[in-house]
Amino acid sequence: MPSKFTKISDVGEFSLIHSLSQKFKNKNPSTIVGIGDDAAVIAKDTTHYTLMTTDMLIENIHFDLTYCPLKHLGYKAVVVNISDILAMNGTPEQITVSIAVSSKFSLEALQTLYEGIALACTHYQVDLIGGDTTAATQGLSIAVSAIGTVKKNSICKRSTAQPQELICVTGDLGAAYLGLQILNREKKVFLAHDTMQPVLEEHQYVIERQLKPEINTDLQKFMQKHQILPSAMIDISDGLSSELLHISQASRVGILLYEEKIPILLTTKKTALDLHLDPTICALHGGEDYELLFTLPQEAYEKIKIYPGVTVIGHTVSQSEGCHLITSASHQKIPLKAQGWVHY
Amino acid sequence: MPSKFTKISDVGEFSLIHSLSQKFKNKNPSTIVGIGDDAAVIAKDTTHYTLMTTDMLIENIHFDLTYCPLKHLGYKAVVVNISDILAMNGTPEQITVSIAVSSKFSLEALQTLYEGIALACTHYQVDLIGGDTTAATQGLSIAVSAIGTVKKNSICKRSTAQPQELICVTGDLGAAYLGLQILNREKKVFLAHDTMQPVLEEHQYVIERQLKPEINTDLQKFMQKHQILPSAMIDISDGLSSELLHISQASRVGILLYEEKIPILLTTKKTALDLHLDPTICALHGGEDYELLFTLPQEAYEKIKIYPGVTVIGHTVSQSEGCHLITSASHQKIPLKAQGWVHY
Repeated sequence: MPSKFTKISDVGEFSLIHSLSQKFKNKNPSTIVGIGDDAAVIAKDTTHYTLMTTDMLIENIHFDLTYCPLKHLGYKAVVVNISDILAMNGTPEQITVSIAVSSKFSLEALQTLYEGIALACTHYQVDLIGGDTTAATQGLSIAVSAIGTVKKNSICKRSTAQPQELICVTGDLGAAYLGLQILNREKKVFLAHDTMQPVLEEHQYVIERQLKPEINTDLQKFMQKHQILPSAMIDISDGLSSELLHISQASRVGILLYEEKIPILLTTKKTALDLHLDPTICALHGGEDYELLFTLPQEAYEKIKIYPGVTVIGHTVSQSEGCHLITSASHQKIPLKAQGWVHY
Repeated sequence: MPSKFTKISDVGEFSLIHSLSQKFKNKNPSTIVGIGDDAAVIAKDTTHYTLMTTDMLIENIHFDLTYCPLKHLGYKAVVVNISDILAMNGTPEQITVSIAVSSKFSLEALQTLYEGIALACTHYQVDLIGGDTTAATQGLSIAVSAIGTVKKNSICKRSTAQPQELICVTGDLGAAYLGLQILNREKKVFLAHDTMQPVLEEHQYVIERQLKPEINTDLQKFMQKHQILPSAMIDISDGLSSELLHISQASRVGILLYEEKIPILLTTKKTALDLHLDPTICALHGGEDYELLFTLPQEAYEKIKIYPGVTVIGHTVSQSEGCHLITSASHQKIPLKAQGWVHY
C-alpha cells in the first residue's frame, strides 16, 4: 500500500520551497522583496535598501571534514552568503554565524573554524555581529545570515532582464564541482588503501575552487566607475543552467546559450577528462562556482568588453522561444534543463 | 595522558562565545552594536536603527518531537527570535527561516511546521522573507533570523542600567521549565508502559508555556503611551538569575532580588511541589520563560504600577555590593549564580 505521505526527495528543492512558502503574505510596508531572489529587500532610508540572505551548511551534506579543513569551511560559509548580497549589486556589511556542534569537536577545532570566518570578514570587510552557539547530537551545522545595503537605483534583481540582451558571466565555471569529484575520489582511495598518498597537486586549481572559493567584488567597482548597470543578476551556486532558468522564469525571457562561449579553463577541462566527465556538463550543472551571472543591454557591450573577467555567453530572447544551448560541435539547439535536488 | 584539546563541555556557553568572538573587530560604520546584547544594532536612517538576531533550534537538544507537535515548534521558533527584538524595545518586522531535515520527514510534516511559522507571523505581524531548505543526515534543525526596527531614542540595551533603579519583570516565571519536566516524566512513563495514558490535564498551564510560548507585545505599547523608557532590558530565555547577571555585568551594577517578589503562579508552584522541585529555583534557573526583564528609574514607579502584567522584583545597587537574592523565609542574603550550559 502506498504511503499517504509525500517523501521530500520526490518533491525537488524549488517545489518544496514553493509549497512551504506559498501561504505567506507580506504585511509590513518595509518588506520590499520577500522570498524568491538571491536576497530579500527591506526598506532602509530614502536612497538605500537593506539586503538580507541566509544559508545553512550541514556536515556530510555540504562539506566533508575528511578533506575540508575547518578554517577553509569557515571562510567558505561567509563567502557563500555574501555572494548573494553581491548578486543583488549590494555591499555586504554584517553577518551572523550560528553553529550547532556535537561534543566530538574541541574548543581548538571551533577556534580554527572561526579563524576562517575572521579571515573572510577581514577580506570582504564585513562585521560579525551575532550568532548562536548550541550543542548538537551529531556533527556540525553552520547557519550564516548576511546583511548588506544597495542604492535603490542600483539594485539588480533576477526578474528584470529583457529580451535581446547580452548574458554575461564572471570568471570560469565547472572547477568547484570537479574539485569535489577529485576530493571524493582520493578519499575513496585513501579509505581503501590508507598507505597511499592522495594525488592532489595536479588538480590544485579545481580543489581550491571547491575548498576556498573567492567572489568577485572588483566587477562591482568597475561597473560603478563605468556606469554599467546589469538588467538582472544572480550568483551561480546551483550551476549555470539552473541559474539561467531562474532568470528566464523570473524575467519572463527565453535564453540562447552558446556552449563554445562558456568559460572553462584548460586545467578544469583536463581534470574533467581525467574523470571521464564532460566539462560542459560540469559547468552547466556542477554548481558552487560563486560567479556572477548577469544580463546587459547590448549597448553596454563596448563598456564591459574591456573588463577581463567577464565573458558574454549568449543572449536573451523572447519567452516564447524558450531556453536552449547551442552545442559547439554540431550547432545543435538543445533545451536547457535544471538539475534536480541532489542532496537526498 | 590528558588530551591537549579542550572539551567544549568544559568551557561553558558564554566563555565559548567570548573565546570565539574576541578576535573580531567591527570595521563598518553601520555596525552600531555587535555581539553581546539580545540583538545586534545596525544604522538605518536618521531616526531609527535596524535590529537583527538569530537562533538555532536542534532536535533532541531544544525540542523532542515525541511530545512537541511540529506546528507548535514552528510557532515557538519564531517567538524565541522576535522576543530578542522586543527585548531591545524594537518592533519585529521580518524573519528568515532555514531548515535542515533528514529524509524521515514528509512534505506534510514540513507543511505542518510551516503552518506554525505562518501562525506566529500573522499573530506578531512579521513577514517571512527568505531562508534555506536543505537535507540533513539526521533529525531537524531550524535556524531563524529576525529583523526589526527601533527608534534611536527608544532603544533598550542591557548595558545602561544605573544603581538604585527598580528591577521589573513581565508575566510569571518557572512554568516553561516545569512544563518540560512534566513532558519528560510522562514520556518516560509512556516508554516504560506504552498502555498508560500520559497525565497532562492538571499541568496544562506549564505545558503550554513550554510548548507554545507567547511574548508580551502589549507592554511596549503601554510604555510608549505613558512615556516610560526602561534604562535596560533583556528577555528571560536562560533563567532570571543568568539574565540579571547579564544586566549586572554589562551595566556594571549590583543586584538585590527579593525571592518573595518573584512572580510564580500557584499552578506552577503546585507542579513544582509534585515534582519535588523548589519553585524559586525553577524561576531562577529554568529558562525559556520569554518574559521581559527591565530596569526603571524609581520615579517611573507611579506610571508602571497600573500595568497589571509587571512585577517589581528588586532593585539595582552599586557594583561593589554584588548580586544577591534575599530569601523569603529567613531573609538571608545569598549570592546570585548563573546556571552553566546544560546542553552537553
